[in-house]
Amino acid sequence: MNSVFIAFNREYFRRMTTIEQLPTPTLLLDKQKLHNNIAVMQQQASKLGVTLRPHLKTAKSVQVANCFGSGTSLPITVSTLAEAEYFAKHGFTDITYAVGFNPNLMARLASLYHSAVPVRIIVDDLAVARQVAQSAAQYDITVKVMIEIDTDGHRAGVEPDDPQLLKIAEALSASAHIELCGVLTHAGGSYDCHSESQLIAHAEQERAGCVAAADACRAHGIDIREVSVGSTPTAMFASHLQGVTELRAGVFVFQDLFQVGLGVCELDDIAVSVLTTVIGHKARQHRLIVDAGGLALSKDRSTQTQGVDCGYGSLADAVTGRVIEQVKVTGANQEHGIIDLPRHIPLSDFAIGSKWRILPNHACMTAAAYDNYHVHDGCGGVLDRWARINGW
Amino acid sequence: MNSVFIAFNREYFRRMTTIEQLPTPTLLLDKQKLHNNIAVMQQQASKLGVTLRPHLKTAKSVQVANCFGSGTSLPITVSTLAEAEYFAKHGFTDITYAVGFNPNLMARLASLYHSAVPVRIIVDDLAVARQVAQSAAQYDITVKVMIEIDTDGHRAGVEPDDPQLLKIAEALSASAHIELCGVLTHAGGSYDCHSESQLIAHAEQERAGCVAAADACRAHGIDIREVSVGSTPTAMFASHLQGVTELRAGVFVFQDLFQVGLGVCELDDIAVSVLTTVIGHKARQHRLIVDAGGLALSKDRSTQTQGVDCGYGSLADAVTGRVIEQVKVTGANQEHGIIDLPRHIPLSDFAIGSKWRILPNHACMTAAAYDNYHVHDGCGGVLDRWARINGW
Repeated sequence: MNSVFIAFNREYFRRMTTIEQLPTPTLLLDKQKLHNNIAVMQQQASKLGVTLRPHLKTAKSVQVANCFGSGTSLPITVSTLAEAEYFAKHGFTDITYAVGFNPNLMARLASLYHSAVPVRIIVDDLAVARQVAQSAAQYDITVKVMIEIDTDGHRAGVEPDDPQLLKIAEALSASAHIELCGVLTHAGGSYDCHSESQLIAHAEQERAGCVAAADACRAHGIDIREVSVGSTPTAMFASHLQGVTELRAGVFVFQDLFQVGLGVCELDDIAVSVLTTVIGHKARQHRLIVDAGGLALSKDRSTQTQGVDCGYGSLADAVTGRVIEQVKVTGANQEHGIIDLPRHIPLSDFAIGSKWRILPNHACMTAAAYDNYHVHDGCGGVLDRWARINGW
Repeated sequence: MNSVFIAFNREYFRRMTTIEQLPTPTLLLDKQKLHNNIAVMQQQASKLGVTLRPHLKTAKSVQVANCFGSGTSLPITVSTLAEAEYFAKHGFTDITYAVGFNPNLMARLASLYHSAVPVRIIVDDLAVARQVAQSAAQYDITVKVMIEIDTDGHRAGVEPDDPQLLKIAEALSASAHIELCGVLTHAGGSYDCHSESQLIAHAEQERAGCVAAADACRAHGIDIREVSVGSTPTAMFASHLQGVTELRAGVFVFQDLFQVGLGVCELDDIAVSVLTTVIGHKARQHRLIVDAGGLALSKDRSTQTQGVDCGYGSLADAVTGRVIEQVKVTGANQEHGIIDLPRHIPLSDFAIGSKWRILPNHACMTAAAYDNYHVHDGCGGVLDRWARINGW
């Protein structure tokens, strides 16, 4: 951080010290809730006997990473090479880039390796495995690779029973320029669960599938050290993680309405929100207009399929964060949030110019609209501003 | 633009001159299509006998504004004060900020006025009108104000027959620190039209409603000079614009799949797209994974309610931009685009590592994920990189 920015920041916080004084739309982060959420997941990983490797695709912030208390020795997960480069620049070296590796990115990856940041990549394809091995030789590096396993048909990865798995493992093991570190899965299908028993079952399916893949490789004489699983819902609902070595999860740091709908957390755990201002009243439609629309909130509608549809976000008190029952953003144009109020709640409860928070459906999508967090103390005081890394 | 950036840009384009060489995900802009789209709307405004005041909320770029051929004398519309400040910094002075004014922004607005950039604001509320008048006196400026009119119940604005209209007009006229410039409406309801006849009717409803509001004020002895209407669909389907003085529209510069679905343009008119790389094949699901997910495309699903649901975007050839029939992004996780291919199209048509374009549902939402455009010649050559202003 350069001195101009520090000076600006200092000046900024000398003048702006309460949430009510912040411009809108602004991304807020409750520091205490963030710390609580991190502690809960750390306890969970500890209880399950696995290493926690948080997925920083949600927070994309060094300051949030620092809240884990391990400094730059924290093992982390990222979703873009830009994130890997950002965290590497800030001293982190134990990084897993958990999106199927695009061989076109080899030059950037090699550059990280040459800076002593051996970012682990994931592959689920034989041709890509061979291409990475060949490329690694050319760059004279030994690339750390995990094989991505598909345990629920949700997205990517090779199925544990697919004969391709052993071929990929063999190809990787055979290369002098690859270090096959293990297997990795993400049970994204857990987001479609609708009950606790489904979540417990899905967590077990994730664990069992990934361990089965590891065992298949081992039975074939291939050493598999790491068995990495994770999503916030399966992490919280796993009964045990026998055979697993590490847990990845991301959204838990902030939580969101979707996680509340899943039963992963409580409304009061949501640490991130968008500060907005009421900019209009429409008496005939009994409607508020706020200055947080589709760009400020994202167009994510993931609670739509859950028991409680929160529209584009739920309204909450700006200072206390207390949710206003039954009040949600019902429409989102580019810069307009539309709140069709229930008829029994008077428009006058929400004066034009008044500020409110909006809790997000999906924290990862909403946070990505902002370059920074305004970190607050949960009772109206703004403590700091933390940067985020966006883009690719 | 500082010299370091210019030097970087030059070096960048010396090395990267074709679309195929660009990293992904990247936002592409077809220069010829952009120019064609602008020419079509300029002809339409000219035919209708009104001034075109493009809404730059879509492009958020000085270079795109320059394509209108009027330099900084172009009358423009913006959706955030950050846009107004950005265009003001680049020499534009005739700016309408077309989102209901938030009185908390008065200091920033006054700062623009004090720099000889008298940004017009819009209001639809009597208390806000009075507050602006009072604040303008304190800042010793004369604020240009338009009254926002609601012609279709879609979002904000005062209805033409609402007695509040005349009260607001009176309050504004009475202030020595307000210049009441006119009335303004946006028929956002046009996005819900499903036929040409509905669009023609909606355009006439927009025109008639806004003119009625102007006439009501005039009958009350209040001078109304400007009558401003617009949305891309109503602009293209208006039979005539009698009584209207200016036309605002935004998305037409880029067009998108939603506008195609409305019948406003052809697929081949879409100027903006996201360049993506295939990063995975899932044989069992007959699925491609690409590196453009919810953050790179946005979660906008506006074609969902139209005759042709394009998912999170339609696939097209990276170089020619030719659409691949029946191939669309069927799912979008944060960094993963999921393309469930029709069974008759082989996965091998889309090699891992190959690049493709994705045409967006909603250009405004998709473009907002990027800081710049890679401007190309429509046949694979990259011409330039243009910056965008995001945020608030």
